[in-house]
Amino acid sequence: MFPFQTLISIDKNTAFPAYKQLANRLITLIQEGRILPGSFLPSTREFADMLQVNRKTITRAYEELISQNWLEGIPKKGFRIIPDLPLIRPRSFDPRKKKKLKESASEKIAAQAIAQDINLPFVPPEHHLMKSTDIVVNDGFPDANLLPFEELFRAYRRQLNSKKIIQQMALRDDGGLPQLKKSVSGFLNETRGLNISTEEIVMTRGAQMAIYIAATLLLKPGDLVAVTDPNYPFANDVIKQCGAQLIQFPVDADGLDIDLLTEALKKKPIRLLYLVPHHHHPTTVTLSASRRLKLLQLIKEYDLWVIEDDYDYDFHFKSSPILPLASSDHDGKIIYIGSFTKLLATPFRIGYLIAAPAFVRDAIRLRRIIDLRGDALMEQTLTDMINNGELSRHIKKSNKLYMQRCNYLCGLLEERLGNAVSFKKPPGGMAVWLVFNEKINLPELIKKASLSGVYLAGYAYYQKGNENHNGIRFGFASLTEPQMDRAIDVISKLVGENF
Amino acid sequence: MFPFQTLISIDKNTAFPAYKQLANRLITLIQEGRILPGSFLPSTREFADMLQVNRKTITRAYEELISQNWLEGIPKKGFRIIPDLPLIRPRSFDPRKKKKLKESASEKIAAQAIAQDINLPFVPPEHHLMKSTDIVVNDGFPDANLLPFEELFRAYRRQLNSKKIIQQMALRDDGGLPQLKKSVSGFLNETRGLNISTEEIVMTRGAQMAIYIAATLLLKPGDLVAVTDPNYPFANDVIKQCGAQLIQFPVDADGLDIDLLTEALKKKPIRLLYLVPHHHHPTTVTLSASRRLKLLQLIKEYDLWVIEDDYDYDFHFKSSPILPLASSDHDGKIIYIGSFTKLLATPFRIGYLIAAPAFVRDAIRLRRIIDLRGDALMEQTLTDMINNGELSRHIKKSNKLYMQRCNYLCGLLEERLGNAVSFKKPPGGMAVWLVFNEKINLPELIKKASLSGVYLAGYAYYQKGNENHNGIRFGFASLTEPQMDRAIDVISKLVGENF
Repeated sequence: MFPFQTLISIDKNTAFPAYKQLANRLITLIQEGRILPGSFLPSTREFADMLQVNRKTITRAYEELISQNWLEGIPKKGFRIIPDLPLIRPRSFDPRKKKKLKESASEKIAAQAIAQDINLPFVPPEHHLMKSTDIVVNDGFPDANLLPFEELFRAYRRQLNSKKIIQQMALRDDGGLPQLKKSVSGFLNETRGLNISTEEIVMTRGAQMAIYIAATLLLKPGDLVAVTDPNYPFANDVIKQCGAQLIQFPVDADGLDIDLLTEALKKKPIRLLYLVPHHHHPTTVTLSASRRLKLLQLIKEYDLWVIEDDYDYDFHFKSSPILPLASSDHDGKIIYIGSFTKLLATPFRIGYLIAAPAFVRDAIRLRRIIDLRGDALMEQTLTDMINNGELSRHIKKSNKLYMQRCNYLCGLLEERLGNAVSFKKPPGGMAVWLVFNEKINLPELIKKASLSGVYLAGYAYYQKGNENHNGIRFGFASLTEPQMDRAIDVISKLVGENF
Repeated sequence: MFPFQTLISIDKNTAFPAYKQLANRLITLIQEGRILPGSFLPSTREFADMLQVNRKTITRAYEELISQNWLEGIPKKGFRIIPDLPLIRPRSFDPRKKKKLKESASEKIAAQAIAQDINLPFVPPEHHLMKSTDIVVNDGFPDANLLPFEELFRAYRRQLNSKKIIQQMALRDDGGLPQLKKSVSGFLNETRGLNISTEEIVMTRGAQMAIYIAATLLLKPGDLVAVTDPNYPFANDVIKQCGAQLIQFPVDADGLDIDLLTEALKKKPIRLLYLVPHHHHPTTVTLSASRRLKLLQLIKEYDLWVIEDDYDYDFHFKSSPILPLASSDHDGKIIYIGSFTKLLATPFRIGYLIAAPAFVRDAIRLRRIIDLRGDALMEQTLTDMINNGELSRHIKKSNKLYMQRCNYLCGLLEERLGNAVSFKKPPGGMAVWLVFNEKINLPELIKKASLSGVYLAGYAYYQKGNENHNGIRFGFASLTEPQMDRAIDVISKLVGENF
């Protein structure tokens, strides 16, 4: 007798019906070749006894198997597994062997597929066990507590009562709701000196997807791409994923070194420059006016494409932010990228890509292939926030608070870490770029700080490949003053051990 | 005198401050080479007169330009554009020429980059002008009105008061919140006979992104990929985007023709099969048990990878759904894909990819490159819905209603369109596959129906390349009976004209 009792167990303490559990288990045993095609199953009474379940459970499981074409009822004989199911190779019962097979099949993929890893932001092991008093210092994210959530929820609920949005949710998505594209282009034209129409915009999931789409459309394997060193690491990863080759150029207090880029362009066919000209990531410096003009000339002279990542435009403390490169004349060669995620909070992933209409049409198609459609409720809510001025008010309010927090942090850094770190107070944004004294082992510091409940979760840059900056971004925008006190306290004590 | 009045206009009816408008406009004029480096701007008094604005506006604009390094104040002389800005090539003033340049630069890209277009789902032109009484017949989407929105909003609000989720929002995203991966793997093990751990799951934006990630990791240009004909068009697009080549196999009442696939495998090195074995898209047929077993053998014999897209598993009307192929022994060669979007509503884009741990690690890296992070609030809400049984209750309730609607629609089709369409009542899911009589011009029908306020927005399949099915999916799940009445009424009248 087949050892049904050993191989089948019914869990009565779950919502999943017993008959389904049995049917599914029997199918698995058939698929594994342990119950053979053409063999008979026990009678319903017998089986019910064996498994200590109601006979109805067996009957329903058999009905299920019959309806799924695994089983047939033979009058006066009982229930038989369909005989012409092809015979299956018995399953390997060596879990190690099975594991090895699984892994080797996928290691091949691992080698083929993916860009080299970077120094990923630190995540505490089992971070769901973090204490609520622990402090996470992020890479420069907005403070979600500032968002007018009650109003947002009211707006969401309003959307759902509107027939319009329900209709739109069912339609094909052409890179964002038309009304959102209209509002966003108005917002960008007003704040950034652009002059774009809805034909020149595609909405994405945050700036990251916009970078991914632009690079995928522009690059083929072997292309040369200019970037700064250091650079936003996940942009480097996109470029490597496209099979293109990075050429790195240094950054000084005026931003990217344009003279070195010019020299390189004379010698090599560089196809694309990825640049954050305003509040450069990670260093927060801004490209000077004269270098901007030189860069605009290079675009024309060398047929250079530029991805201008302007993730941080709307948060600038003193003078106005510098207008984007894309606001000047560039014959459609600048792909302009930004994000509303940095204005709201990390769960609200809405970004955009601005380019010439033909490029945007391709970007819409690629976005559909990657992601099919956006979140229409969130898109309509953002549309309303732009149109009724809520977004502008939120930016203004946040900017004021972030400036205070930036000042506070820079005071603390000066006072407590003056010997160990060098930094420059940023002109805006949500993070300070801290470069640690070379004697300090940054990965070690990050690890030790986490043991004291301070998680430095920004991007850390230290010896790996060409990156030898010993620096990390310290996001201040979402931290209160006491939280900053404690974080800097923990860091300065750890740094003290090094001196 | 430079024609400042003609070239600068200040809009006083906007929230954007006048001084910023002026500063931005001046920068543009400098960048365009129309105001030359080293030239003087008018005095503040003069300029205020010219533009009919307050003198303070001019002063603030000049301060802005000085702080941004475009302008310098020369004592007793006035304000001068920084002389050592490099001279710029004057801007082309021929808008047609400029347009041509823009377009030609990007046409090059268009040719290089993107997969061939498909028959995209129909979208009414200017669909934001749709009437609220208009009916959108979608491809098979859930009814958003069934969602317990009040509870969802309460759950969202609860998340925001929890310190934990705010901390997690700042941390690196490893393909979904750990607690969500845990709940989803439990849900899948219970409902689908799988036996996976959190190492074997990565959360994505809907099934589409999971298909994109799996195909990108598995394929290189030139690879051969088996698909059904007809097939889910956006999967074909992903495969083409990877540079791989499609080989199409017919579908009959038992699903994919396995014998033809076997013949092809003997002759050609097919790397991957993309398949929807359960409620096939678009035809809704299910792969028979014996073909399933044959397919599992082919995977072993020919080292074939399979993407099993099981988007529709949870909605099955009579017997239980068929267990996924991935629930049997396949040495990690089946990548199993599904989605919660189909359980909730289109804005809730959360899907998953199940594979061996090494494959999943690569998928997590690629997802981060494409999309950085998910929506932590939505992810936590879904976690709670799974854990407290809300999701199961919702599925049960929806399934019951969808079955009624399916029956109603099939009755209508039989009665009103029996001569013009052939269809088979689906065993579950959210759409019926309608194949129109060859005499009927389907694109024409879709266009005409929209003029009567009935938008057939499902994927339509008609003569284009190899696709010659003259069919469309008619989503019933989100339509009320009167809406279906009206839609079928409009279609049958249009069809009548053809006979």
